[in-house]
Amino acid sequence: MRELYELCGASPEVVFSPYCWRVRLALAHKGLDFTSRPVRVTDKEALAFSGQKLVPVLRDGETVVHDSLAIFRYLDEQYPERSLLGGAVGESRLRLVDQLIAQDLRPGLFRLLVLRILTLLDPADREPFRQSREKNLGMTLEAFADREAGQAQLARALQPLDAQLAGQPWLDGAEPGGADYLIGGFFFWAWTLGEQPWPEDSPVGAWFRRLLAFCEERQGPVRRAAAV
Amino acid sequence: MRELYELCGASPEVVFSPYCWRVRLALAHKGLDFTSRPVRVTDKEALAFSGQKLVPVLRDGETVVHDSLAIFRYLDEQYPERSLLGGAVGESRLRLVDQLIAQDLRPGLFRLLVLRILTLLDPADREPFRQSREKNLGMTLEAFADREAGQAQLARALQPLDAQLAGQPWLDGAEPGGADYLIGGFFFWAWTLGEQPWPEDSPVGAWFRRLLAFCEERQGPVRRAAAV
Repeated sequence: MRELYELCGASPEVVFSPYCWRVRLALAHKGLDFTSRPVRVTDKEALAFSGQKLVPVLRDGETVVHDSLAIFRYLDEQYPERSLLGGAVGESRLRLVDQLIAQDLRPGLFRLLVLRILTLLDPADREPFRQSREKNLGMTLEAFADREAGQAQLARALQPLDAQLAGQPWLDGAEPGGADYLIGGFFFWAWTLGEQPWPEDSPVGAWFRRLLAFCEERQGPVRRAAAV
Repeated sequence: MRELYELCGASPEVVFSPYCWRVRLALAHKGLDFTSRPVRVTDKEALAFSGQKLVPVLRDGETVVHDSLAIFRYLDEQYPERSLLGGAVGESRLRLVDQLIAQDLRPGLFRLLVLRILTLLDPADREPFRQSREKNLGMTLEAFADREAGQAQLARALQPLDAQLAGQPWLDGAEPGGADYLIGGFFFWAWTLGEQPWPEDSPVGAWFRRLLAFCEERQGPVRRAAAV
């Protein structure tokens, strides 16, 4: 029995956390099936068994692992075929990439998505979500959700990805790998929320369509929130 | 006979190109000795044998290779022990890191270093250097060399590196590797020009001292231009 605990809004059908999508893509890569266990933002009890409060959590038989990159490492140890990380050095480079994309890609998309997330949450989750995020951001969600600033930050984030993908189909080269899932998770975040704030007609746009097809071939149609 | 063709200014003793430093560090990593062939900016004849005009060029017996990452690949193929790239996926992740650091680290340092470079070039090289760079930048070197903008861009570039180095001694993990040399080349660029525009007392500051010691243990003292 393999279960993935992942974030959902009011509807348990739409799961949208970027870190959970990393794990969904990693499971597709390994050819492993799983049962989705959608968890609402404030439902901390559902994760108590993992000894911490954050999704994603993977329960694989007797083993419980949380944190997307720790789950990648567990999957490589337990199912060594088709490495996700590429060993210790490969993992270290993924962590470096993760630090580098934290400057523009993650916050740029979050600016563009945050009000959309708010409307899709269970009504009881909205005020706790707003309070915790506004405390971190030091401003109201409405002030943070500046579309012009978000689009500029995202455009900047897409430049190096477009450059990397100009000469190869996947961020990791000829085949999809850990870097594609690490970064792809952020694109699935937007996509599942019913948005696509990057240009369709670009190397990144073509790459995302490949990644979506890769995922849907293995796990069936990706459920999206209705477009506004 | 192994020769590294690398960029120098008026003095052939001080070599400062960041891409050439990548290769010097890679040669230290592999434990390979070499003879330095310093080349002045406008001395394109010196590189004619390589069929192109850019340093670094490595001549290893009958083989001639240019471009820092192509040289890493050649070294891994010819001297497989202690891989620099970590195979095709590792190389692809290094190229992604290279794209990501091209946004702030390289231009931030270039702003801070460009006028220093100009004074260290052979007098005959200064005008051609100015013309080609000003054409690329679309402004005068003096306008580009805005110290406040350069420091802000560099501070932004150091954040993800500090985060990566907070928990491990090298960018590539427990041992220095390709990512350390790829990025370290930019720090040797500043260092050899007699500058150190990053905080000594920071994870990056400590990492650079380790990288400098690693290099000097294997290749002797690093020659720096006199501080201004």
